[in-house]
Amino acid sequence: MKVLAIDTSNQPMSVALVEDEQLMATTTLNMVRNHSIFLMPTIDKLFQLVQWQAADIDRVVVAQGPGSYTGVRIAVTTAKVLADTENLPLVGISSLAVLARNVVPTSDDLIVPFFDARRGNVFAGAYQWDQGQLVNKIADQHVAMNDLLGQLANVDHQVLLVGHLTDRIKKKMTGNLPNNVHLMPRPFGIPSTYQLALAGEYAEPTNDIDDFVPHYLRITEAEANWQKLHPGETKGSYVREV
Amino acid sequence: MKVLAIDTSNQPMSVALVEDEQLMATTTLNMVRNHSIFLMPTIDKLFQLVQWQAADIDRVVVAQGPGSYTGVRIAVTTAKVLADTENLPLVGISSLAVLARNVVPTSDDLIVPFFDARRGNVFAGAYQWDQGQLVNKIADQHVAMNDLLGQLANVDHQVLLVGHLTDRIKKKMTGNLPNNVHLMPRPFGIPSTYQLALAGEYAEPTNDIDDFVPHYLRITEAEANWQKLHPGETKGSYVREV
Repeated sequence: MKVLAIDTSNQPMSVALVEDEQLMATTTLNMVRNHSIFLMPTIDKLFQLVQWQAADIDRVVVAQGPGSYTGVRIAVTTAKVLADTENLPLVGISSLAVLARNVVPTSDDLIVPFFDARRGNVFAGAYQWDQGQLVNKIADQHVAMNDLLGQLANVDHQVLLVGHLTDRIKKKMTGNLPNNVHLMPRPFGIPSTYQLALAGEYAEPTNDIDDFVPHYLRITEAEANWQKLHPGETKGSYVREV
Repeated sequence: MKVLAIDTSNQPMSVALVEDEQLMATTTLNMVRNHSIFLMPTIDKLFQLVQWQAADIDRVVVAQGPGSYTGVRIAVTTAKVLADTENLPLVGISSLAVLARNVVPTSDDLIVPFFDARRGNVFAGAYQWDQGQLVNKIADQHVAMNDLLGQLANVDHQVLLVGHLTDRIKKKMTGNLPNNVHLMPRPFGIPSTYQLALAGEYAEPTNDIDDFVPHYLRITEAEANWQKLHPGETKGSYVREV
Protein backbone atom coordinates (compact mmCIF):
# COMPACT_ATOMS: atom_id res chain seq x y z
CA MET A 1 0.00 0.00 0.00
CA LYS A 2 1.33 3.43 -1.03
CA VAL A 3 0.60 6.10 1.55
CA LEU A 4 0.98 9.86 1.29
CA ALA A 5 1.20 11.43 4.77
CA ILE A 6 1.09 15.18 5.33
CA ASP A 7 1.25 17.39 8.40
CA THR A 8 1.17 21.18 8.46
CA SER A 9 -0.73 21.50 11.72
CA ASN A 10 2.05 23.26 13.62
CA GLN A 11 5.39 24.89 12.84
CA PRO A 12 6.90 21.87 11.06
CA MET A 13 5.59 21.15 7.58
CA SER A 14 6.23 17.51 6.77
CA VAL A 15 5.44 15.08 3.97
CA ALA A 16 6.26 11.37 3.76
CA LEU A 17 5.79 8.71 1.11
CA VAL A 18 5.56 5.25 2.62
CA GLU A 19 5.06 1.92 0.86
CA ASP A 20 4.19 -1.27 2.73
CA GLU A 21 5.53 0.19 5.98
CA GLN A 22 8.82 1.22 4.37
CA LEU A 23 9.70 4.89 4.29
CA MET A 24 10.47 5.91 0.71
CA ALA A 25 11.10 9.62 1.13
CA THR A 26 10.29 12.42 3.54
CA THR A 27 10.94 16.14 3.84
CA THR A 28 10.37 18.34 6.87
CA LEU A 29 10.64 22.12 6.83
CA ASN A 30 10.61 23.65 10.30
CA MET A 31 10.57 27.40 9.87
CA VAL A 32 7.97 30.06 10.40
CA ARG A 33 6.93 30.06 6.78
CA ASN A 34 3.76 29.91 4.83
CA HIS A 35 3.05 26.19 4.61
CA SER A 36 0.61 26.79 1.74
CA ILE A 37 3.49 27.90 -0.50
CA PHE A 38 5.74 24.92 0.23
CA LEU A 39 3.37 21.99 0.65
CA MET A 40 2.45 21.15 -2.96
CA PRO A 41 5.98 21.71 -4.36
CA THR A 42 7.34 19.45 -1.59
CA ILE A 43 4.84 16.70 -2.43
CA ASP A 44 5.72 17.07 -6.14
CA LYS A 45 9.45 16.91 -5.41
CA LEU A 46 9.07 13.72 -3.34
CA PHE A 47 6.89 12.13 -6.04
CA GLN A 48 9.68 12.87 -8.54
CA LEU A 49 12.33 11.37 -6.24
CA VAL A 50 10.49 8.08 -5.81
CA GLN A 51 8.98 8.17 -9.30
CA TRP A 52 5.36 8.07 -8.19
CA GLN A 53 2.35 9.81 -9.68
CA ALA A 54 -0.63 11.05 -7.68
CA ALA A 55 -2.64 8.23 -9.27
CA ASP A 56 -0.30 5.62 -7.68
CA ILE A 57 -1.29 6.57 -4.13
CA ASP A 58 -3.58 4.16 -2.27
CA ARG A 59 -4.39 6.30 0.77
CA VAL A 60 -3.93 9.79 2.16
CA VAL A 61 -3.21 10.24 5.87
CA VAL A 62 -3.30 13.70 7.39
CA ALA A 63 -2.52 15.18 10.79
CA GLN A 64 -5.97 16.49 11.70
CA GLY A 65 -4.94 18.91 14.47
CA PRO A 66 -4.86 20.37 16.97
CA GLY A 67 -2.56 23.15 15.82
CA SER A 68 -2.65 26.56 14.21
CA TYR A 69 -5.97 27.33 12.49
CA THR A 70 -4.44 28.07 9.13
CA GLY A 71 -1.82 25.34 9.44
CA VAL A 72 -4.30 22.57 10.12
CA ARG A 73 -6.56 23.76 7.32
CA ILE A 74 -3.77 23.66 4.72
CA ALA A 75 -2.95 19.97 5.14
CA VAL A 76 -6.57 18.93 5.70
CA THR A 77 -7.78 20.81 2.62
CA THR A 78 -4.94 19.48 0.48
CA ALA A 79 -5.61 15.93 1.71
CA LYS A 80 -9.35 16.25 1.04
CA VAL A 81 -8.82 17.56 -2.49
CA LEU A 82 -6.33 14.78 -3.31
CA ALA A 83 -8.55 12.07 -1.79
CA ASP A 84 -11.64 13.40 -3.56
CA THR A 85 -9.92 13.87 -6.93
CA GLU A 86 -8.16 10.50 -6.94
CA ASN A 87 -11.03 8.73 -5.15
CA LEU A 88 -8.83 7.59 -2.26
CA PRO A 89 -9.48 6.63 1.36
CA LEU A 90 -8.69 9.53 3.71
CA VAL A 91 -7.56 9.03 7.32
CA GLY A 92 -7.11 11.72 9.96
CA ILE A 93 -4.82 11.18 12.95
CA SER A 94 -4.36 13.43 15.99
CA SER A 95 -1.29 15.64 15.52
CA LEU A 96 -0.47 14.99 19.18
CA ALA A 97 -0.70 11.20 18.83
CA VAL A 98 1.87 11.44 16.00
CA LEU A 99 4.28 13.23 18.33
CA ALA A 100 3.72 10.66 21.10
CA ARG A 101 4.90 7.96 18.69
CA ASN A 102 8.42 9.39 18.83
CA VAL A 103 8.79 7.57 22.16
CA VAL A 104 9.76 3.89 21.91
CA PRO A 105 6.86 1.50 22.59
CA THR A 106 8.77 -0.28 25.37
CA SER A 107 8.39 2.82 27.56
CA ASP A 108 5.62 2.62 30.17
CA ASP A 109 5.90 6.30 31.04
CA LEU A 110 3.00 8.65 30.47
CA ILE A 111 3.77 10.47 27.21
CA VAL A 112 2.53 14.05 27.02
CA PRO A 113 2.98 15.59 23.57
CA PHE A 114 2.37 19.34 23.33
CA PHE A 115 2.43 22.21 20.84
CA ASP A 116 2.63 25.91 21.65
CA ALA A 117 -0.86 27.43 21.25
CA ARG A 118 0.27 31.01 22.16
CA ARG A 119 -0.62 33.12 25.21
CA GLY A 120 0.91 30.57 27.60
CA ASN A 121 -1.42 27.86 26.32
CA VAL A 122 -0.59 24.57 24.70
CA PHE A 123 -2.36 21.81 22.88
CA ALA A 124 -1.58 18.65 24.81
CA GLY A 125 -2.81 15.13 25.41
CA ALA A 126 -1.55 12.11 27.32
CA TYR A 127 -0.75 8.75 25.78
CA GLN A 128 0.73 5.48 26.91
CA TRP A 129 2.02 2.41 25.13
CA ASP A 130 0.16 -0.79 25.99
CA GLN A 131 1.42 -3.93 24.26
CA GLY A 132 2.54 -2.04 21.19
CA GLN A 133 -0.67 -0.01 20.93
CA LEU A 134 -0.67 3.71 21.68
CA VAL A 135 -3.57 4.41 24.06
CA ASN A 136 -4.99 7.87 24.69
CA LYS A 137 -5.15 8.48 28.47
CA ILE A 138 -6.11 12.17 28.59
CA ALA A 139 -7.98 13.62 25.61
CA ASP A 140 -6.22 16.22 23.48
CA GLN A 141 -7.04 19.63 24.96
CA HIS A 142 -6.29 23.34 24.76
CA VAL A 143 -4.90 24.20 28.19
CA ALA A 144 -2.67 26.70 29.99
CA MET A 145 0.84 25.22 30.36
CA ASN A 146 0.76 26.05 34.09
CA ASP A 147 -2.49 24.12 34.54
CA LEU A 148 -1.14 21.17 32.55
CA LEU A 149 2.00 20.97 34.69
CA GLY A 150 -0.16 21.21 37.82
CA GLN A 151 -2.18 18.20 36.60
CA LEU A 152 0.95 16.24 35.70
CA ALA A 153 2.60 16.87 39.10
CA ASN A 154 -0.24 14.86 40.65
CA VAL A 155 0.12 11.92 38.28
CA ASP A 156 1.56 8.87 39.99
CA HIS A 157 3.86 8.14 37.04
CA GLN A 158 6.96 9.38 35.27
CA VAL A 159 5.91 11.77 32.51
CA LEU A 160 7.75 12.40 29.23
CA LEU A 161 6.99 15.84 27.80
CA VAL A 162 7.43 15.72 24.04
CA GLY A 163 7.48 19.07 22.28
CA HIS A 164 9.40 22.31 22.10
CA LEU A 165 9.33 24.48 25.22
CA THR A 166 9.44 27.80 23.38
CA ASP A 167 10.60 31.02 25.09
CA ARG A 168 7.00 32.18 24.73
CA ILE A 169 5.75 29.29 26.87
CA LYS A 170 8.62 29.59 29.37
CA LYS A 171 7.82 33.26 29.99
CA LYS A 172 4.32 32.33 31.12
CA MET A 173 5.43 29.41 33.30
CA THR A 174 5.42 30.32 36.98
CA GLY A 175 7.47 27.37 38.19
CA ASN A 176 9.86 24.69 37.06
CA LEU A 177 8.87 21.30 35.72
CA PRO A 178 7.57 18.96 38.45
CA ASN A 179 10.10 16.31 39.52
CA ASN A 180 8.28 13.50 37.75
CA VAL A 181 8.09 15.40 34.45
CA HIS A 182 10.98 15.11 31.98
CA LEU A 183 11.31 17.23 28.86
CA MET A 184 12.62 15.23 25.91
CA PRO A 185 15.32 16.75 23.63
CA ARG A 186 14.10 18.81 20.70
CA PRO A 187 14.31 16.15 17.96
CA PHE A 188 11.53 14.22 19.75
CA GLY A 189 9.33 17.30 19.37
CA ILE A 190 9.39 17.11 15.57
CA PRO A 191 6.46 15.02 14.31
CA SER A 192 7.42 12.21 11.96
CA THR A 193 5.15 11.82 8.96
CA TYR A 194 6.58 8.30 8.62
CA GLN A 195 4.98 7.56 12.00
CA LEU A 196 1.83 9.38 10.80
CA ALA A 197 1.65 7.14 7.73
CA LEU A 198 2.02 3.97 9.84
CA ALA A 199 -0.60 5.17 12.32
CA GLY A 200 -3.02 5.73 9.45
CA GLU A 201 -2.18 2.74 7.28
CA TYR A 202 -4.71 0.40 8.89
CA ALA A 203 -7.01 2.94 10.52
CA GLU A 204 -10.62 3.27 9.42
CA PRO A 205 -10.93 5.97 6.72
CA THR A 206 -13.53 8.71 6.98
CA ASN A 207 -16.98 7.82 5.67
CA ASP A 208 -17.58 11.14 4.04
CA ILE A 209 -14.70 13.25 2.75
CA ASP A 210 -16.92 16.34 2.58
CA ASP A 211 -17.65 16.12 6.32
CA PHE A 212 -14.01 15.63 7.30
CA VAL A 213 -12.96 18.66 9.35
CA PRO A 214 -9.91 19.68 11.42
CA HIS A 215 -9.82 19.22 15.17
CA TYR A 216 -9.20 22.76 16.33
CA LEU A 217 -10.03 22.15 20.03
CA ARG A 218 -10.85 25.85 20.44
CA ILE A 219 -13.07 28.28 18.58
CA THR A 220 -11.46 30.06 15.67
CA GLU A 221 -10.31 33.64 16.06
CA ALA A 222 -13.02 34.72 13.65
CA GLU A 223 -15.61 33.12 15.94
CA ALA A 224 -14.03 34.67 19.02
CA ASN A 225 -14.08 38.11 17.38
CA TRP A 226 -17.67 37.61 16.28
CA GLN A 227 -18.68 36.64 19.82
CA LYS A 228 -17.10 39.84 21.16
CA LEU A 229 -19.09 41.88 18.67
CA HIS A 230 -22.33 39.96 19.26
CA PRO A 231 -22.50 39.33 23.01
CA GLY A 232 -25.31 37.08 24.08
CA GLU A 233 -26.05 35.77 20.59
CA THR A 234 -25.85 32.03 20.02
CA LYS A 235 -23.22 30.49 17.81
CA GLY A 236 -26.01 29.27 15.53
CA SER A 237 -26.37 32.71 14.03
CA TYR A 238 -22.61 33.04 13.34
CA VAL A 239 -22.67 31.08 10.12
CA ARG A 240 -25.65 31.71 7.91
CA GLU A 241 -26.95 28.47 6.42
CA VAL A 242 -27.20 28.71 2.65
CA MET B 1 25.71 28.00 14.67
CA LYS B 2 24.59 26.72 11.25
CA VAL B 3 25.22 23.01 10.80
CA LEU B 4 25.00 20.88 7.67
CA ALA B 5 24.59 17.19 8.57
CA ILE B 6 24.78 14.41 5.99
CA ASP B 7 24.47 10.65 6.15
CA THR B 8 24.67 8.23 3.24
CA SER B 9 26.36 5.43 5.13
CA ASN B 10 23.52 2.94 4.73
CA GLN B 11 20.29 2.63 2.72
CA PRO B 12 18.83 5.97 3.88
CA MET B 13 20.35 9.10 2.40
CA SER B 14 19.63 12.01 4.70
CA VAL B 15 20.53 15.69 4.92
CA ALA B 16 19.61 18.21 7.62
CA LEU B 17 20.18 21.91 8.10
CA VAL B 18 20.18 22.87 11.78
CA GLU B 19 20.68 26.29 13.33
CA ASP B 20 21.32 26.78 17.05
CA GLU B 21 19.79 23.38 17.81
CA GLN B 22 16.67 24.11 15.78
CA LEU B 23 15.91 21.92 12.79
CA MET B 24 15.44 24.12 9.73
CA ALA B 25 14.91 21.50 7.04
CA THR B 26 15.63 17.85 6.39
CA THR B 27 15.10 15.32 3.62
CA THR B 28 15.53 11.57 3.82
CA LEU B 29 15.41 9.27 0.81
CA ASN B 30 15.22 5.60 1.77
CA MET B 31 15.42 3.60 -1.43
CA VAL B 32 18.07 1.43 -3.00
CA ARG B 33 19.33 4.25 -5.16
CA ASN B 34 22.64 5.75 -6.04
CA HIS B 35 23.24 8.23 -3.22
CA SER B 36 25.89 9.99 -5.28
CA ILE B 37 23.22 11.15 -7.74
CA PHE B 38 20.83 12.50 -5.12
CA LEU B 39 23.06 13.93 -2.39
CA MET B 40 24.21 17.23 -3.90
CA PRO B 41 20.81 18.11 -5.45
CA THR B 42 19.18 17.40 -2.07
CA ILE B 43 21.64 19.67 -0.25
CA ASP B 44 21.03 22.37 -2.90
CA LYS B 45 17.26 22.04 -2.59
CA LEU B 46 17.37 22.40 1.22
CA PHE B 47 19.69 25.42 0.93
CA GLN B 48 17.10 27.00 -1.38
CA LEU B 49 14.24 26.23 1.02
CA VAL B 50 15.94 27.88 4.00
CA GLN B 51 17.69 30.51 1.87
CA TRP B 52 21.22 29.58 2.90
CA GLN B 53 24.39 29.55 0.83
CA ALA B 54 27.27 27.11 1.32
CA ALA B 55 29.28 30.05 2.68
CA ASP B 56 26.76 30.50 5.54
CA ILE B 57 27.54 27.09 7.06
CA ASP B 58 29.60 27.06 10.27
CA ARG B 59 30.27 23.33 10.51
CA VAL B 60 29.83 20.07 8.61
CA VAL B 61 28.85 16.93 10.50
CA VAL B 62 28.95 13.57 8.74
CA ALA B 63 28.00 10.01 9.62
CA GLN B 64 31.42 8.35 9.40
CA GLY B 65 30.27 4.75 9.17
CA PRO B 66 30.06 1.87 9.55
CA GLY B 67 27.95 1.14 6.51
CA SER B 68 28.26 0.26 2.85
CA TYR B 69 31.71 1.04 1.43
CA THR B 70 30.45 3.26 -1.36
CA GLY B 71 27.72 4.79 0.79
CA VAL B 72 30.07 5.89 3.55
CA ARG B 73 32.55 7.28 1.06
CA ILE B 74 29.95 9.45 -0.69
CA ALA B 75 28.97 11.45 2.41
CA VAL B 76 32.51 11.52 3.82
CA THR B 77 34.00 12.74 0.54
CA THR B 78 31.27 15.35 0.06
CA ALA B 79 31.73 16.56 3.64
CA LYS B 80 35.52 16.74 3.24
CA VAL B 81 35.29 18.71 -0.01
CA LEU B 82 32.77 21.16 1.50
CA ALA B 83 34.78 21.59 4.71
CA ASP B 84 38.02 22.05 2.79
CA THR B 85 36.57 24.46 0.22
CA GLU B 86 34.70 26.62 2.74
CA ASN B 87 37.36 26.21 5.44
CA LEU B 88 34.94 24.74 7.95
CA PRO B 89 35.30 22.46 10.98
CA LEU B 90 34.44 18.86 10.11
CA VAL B 91 33.05 16.39 12.65
CA GLY B 92 32.50 12.66 12.17
CA ILE B 93 29.99 10.73 14.27
CA SER B 94 29.41 6.98 14.34
CA SER B 95 26.45 6.07 12.09
CA LEU B 96 25.36 3.64 14.82
CA ALA B 97 25.48 6.27 17.58
CA VAL B 98 23.12 8.41 15.47
CA LEU B 99 20.61 5.56 15.32
CA ALA B 100 20.90 4.97 19.09
CA ARG B 101 19.79 8.57 19.64
CA ASN B 102 16.32 7.70 18.36
CA VAL B 103 15.66 6.23 21.83
CA VAL B 104 14.58 8.75 24.47
CA PRO B 105 17.36 9.61 26.98
CA THR B 106 15.19 8.61 29.95
CA SER B 107 15.53 4.96 28.90
CA ASP B 108 18.08 2.95 30.87
CA ASP B 109 17.87 -0.01 28.50
CA LEU B 110 20.89 -1.12 26.51
CA ILE B 111 20.41 0.32 23.02
CA VAL B 112 21.78 -1.80 20.18
CA PRO B 113 21.63 -0.04 16.80
CA PHE B 114 22.37 -2.19 13.77
CA PHE B 115 22.59 -2.05 9.98
CA ASP B 116 22.44 -4.96 7.57
CA ALA B 117 26.01 -5.71 6.38
CA ARG B 118 24.92 -8.60 4.07
CA ARG B 119 25.70 -12.31 4.35
CA GLY B 120 23.90 -12.55 7.73
CA ASN B 121 26.24 -9.97 9.22
CA VAL B 122 25.41 -6.63 10.73
CA PHE B 123 27.20 -3.55 11.89
CA ALA B 124 26.19 -3.08 15.51
CA GLY B 125 27.27 -1.40 18.72
CA ALA B 126 25.76 -0.98 22.18
CA TYR B 127 24.96 2.34 23.79
CA GLN B 128 23.29 3.54 26.95
CA TRP B 129 22.03 6.89 28.17
CA ASP B 130 23.70 8.14 31.34
CA GLN B 131 22.46 11.50 32.63
CA GLY B 132 21.63 12.76 29.18
CA GLN B 133 24.92 11.59 27.65
CA LEU B 134 25.00 8.70 25.21
CA VAL B 135 27.75 6.31 26.33
CA ASN B 136 29.24 3.62 24.11
CA LYS B 137 29.15 0.26 25.97
CA ILE B 138 30.22 -2.16 23.24
CA ALA B 139 32.34 -0.79 20.40
CA ASP B 140 30.82 -0.68 16.91
CA GLN B 141 31.65 -3.97 15.23
CA HIS B 142 31.05 -6.12 12.14
CA VAL B 143 29.44 -9.27 13.49
CA ALA B 144 27.19 -12.17 12.50
CA MET B 145 23.62 -11.41 13.64
CA ASN B 146 23.47 -14.84 15.28
CA ASP B 147 26.61 -14.10 17.31
CA LEU B 148 25.31 -10.67 18.29
CA LEU B 149 22.02 -12.13 19.54
CA GLY B 150 23.96 -14.78 21.45
CA GLN B 151 25.94 -12.03 23.21
CA LEU B 152 22.82 -10.02 23.95
CA ALA B 153 20.96 -12.99 25.45
CA ASN B 154 23.61 -13.05 28.18
CA VAL B 155 23.33 -9.37 28.99
CA ASP B 156 21.64 -8.75 32.35
CA HIS B 157 19.56 -5.94 30.92
CA GLN B 158 16.64 -5.20 28.64
CA VAL B 159 17.95 -4.57 25.12
CA LEU B 160 16.37 -2.32 22.48
CA LEU B 161 17.33 -3.36 18.96
CA VAL B 162 17.16 -0.33 16.69
CA GLY B 163 17.35 -1.05 12.98
CA HIS B 164 15.54 -2.85 10.20
CA LEU B 165 15.48 -6.62 10.43
CA THR B 166 15.61 -7.25 6.69
CA ASP B 167 14.44 -10.52 5.15
CA ARG B 168 18.10 -11.10 4.26
CA ILE B 169 19.09 -11.03 7.94
CA LYS B 170 16.06 -13.07 9.05
CA LYS B 171 16.95 -15.86 6.61
CA LYS B 172 20.35 -16.28 8.28
CA MET B 173 18.99 -16.17 11.84
CA THR B 174 18.76 -19.61 13.40
CA GLY B 175 16.55 -18.64 16.31
CA ASN B 176 14.13 -16.02 17.56
CA LEU B 177 15.10 -12.91 19.45
CA PRO B 178 16.12 -13.64 23.06
CA ASN B 179 13.43 -12.74 25.62
CA ASN B 180 15.29 -9.65 26.85
CA VAL B 181 15.76 -8.27 23.33
CA HIS B 182 13.06 -6.04 21.83
CA LEU B 183 13.01 -4.93 18.21
CA MET B 184 11.85 -1.32 17.87
CA PRO B 185 9.37 -0.41 15.08
CA ARG B 186 10.85 0.59 11.74
CA PRO B 187 10.74 4.39 12.10
CA PHE B 188 13.31 4.08 14.92
CA GLY B 189 15.65 2.38 12.45
CA ILE B 190 15.85 5.48 10.23
CA PRO B 191 18.79 7.66 11.30
CA SER B 192 17.90 11.29 11.98
CA THR B 193 20.35 13.80 10.57
CA TYR B 194 18.83 16.31 13.01
CA GLN B 195 20.18 14.08 15.80
CA LEU B 196 23.45 13.77 13.86
CA ALA B 197 23.78 17.56 13.73
CA LEU B 198 23.15 17.89 17.47
CA ALA B 199 25.63 15.11 18.28
CA GLY B 200 28.27 16.93 16.25
CA GLU B 201 27.48 20.52 17.18
CA TYR B 202 29.81 20.63 20.18
CA ALA B 203 32.07 17.69 19.37
CA GLU B 204 35.77 18.23 18.68
CA PRO B 205 36.35 18.65 14.93
CA THR B 206 39.00 16.64 13.14
CA ASN B 207 42.51 18.11 13.26
CA ASP B 208 43.33 17.29 9.70
CA ILE B 209 40.63 17.09 7.04
CA ASP B 210 42.97 15.22 4.67
CA ASP B 211 43.43 12.42 7.22
CA PHE B 212 39.70 12.08 7.93
CA VAL B 213 38.61 8.63 6.75
CA PRO B 214 35.48 6.49 7.00
CA HIS B 215 35.10 3.83 9.69
CA TYR B 216 34.50 0.74 7.60
CA LEU B 217 35.08 -1.80 10.41
CA ARG B 218 35.98 -4.42 7.83
CA ILE B 219 38.39 -4.53 4.94
CA THR B 220 37.05 -3.31 1.62
CA GLU B 221 36.00 -5.79 -1.03
CA ALA B 222 38.92 -4.63 -3.16
CA GLU B 223 41.30 -5.52 -0.32
CA ALA B 224 39.59 -8.87 0.25
CA ASN B 225 39.87 -9.69 -3.47
CA TRP B 226 43.50 -8.59 -3.48
CA GLN B 227 44.26 -10.80 -0.49
CA LYS B 228 42.73 -13.79 -2.30
CA LEU B 229 44.96 -13.12 -5.30
CA HIS B 230 48.07 -12.49 -3.20
CA PRO B 231 47.99 -15.06 -0.39
CA GLY B 232 50.63 -14.57 2.23
CA GLU B 233 51.53 -11.04 1.17
CA THR B 234 51.24 -8.31 3.77
CA LYS B 235 48.68 -5.55 3.46
CA GLY B 236 51.55 -3.07 3.22
CA SER B 237 52.13 -4.00 -0.41
CA TYR B 238 48.44 -3.55 -1.34
CA VAL B 239 48.60 0.18 -1.73
CA ARG B 240 51.72 1.50 -3.37
CA GLU B 241 52.92 4.65 -1.65
CA VAL B 242 53.42 7.49 -4.13
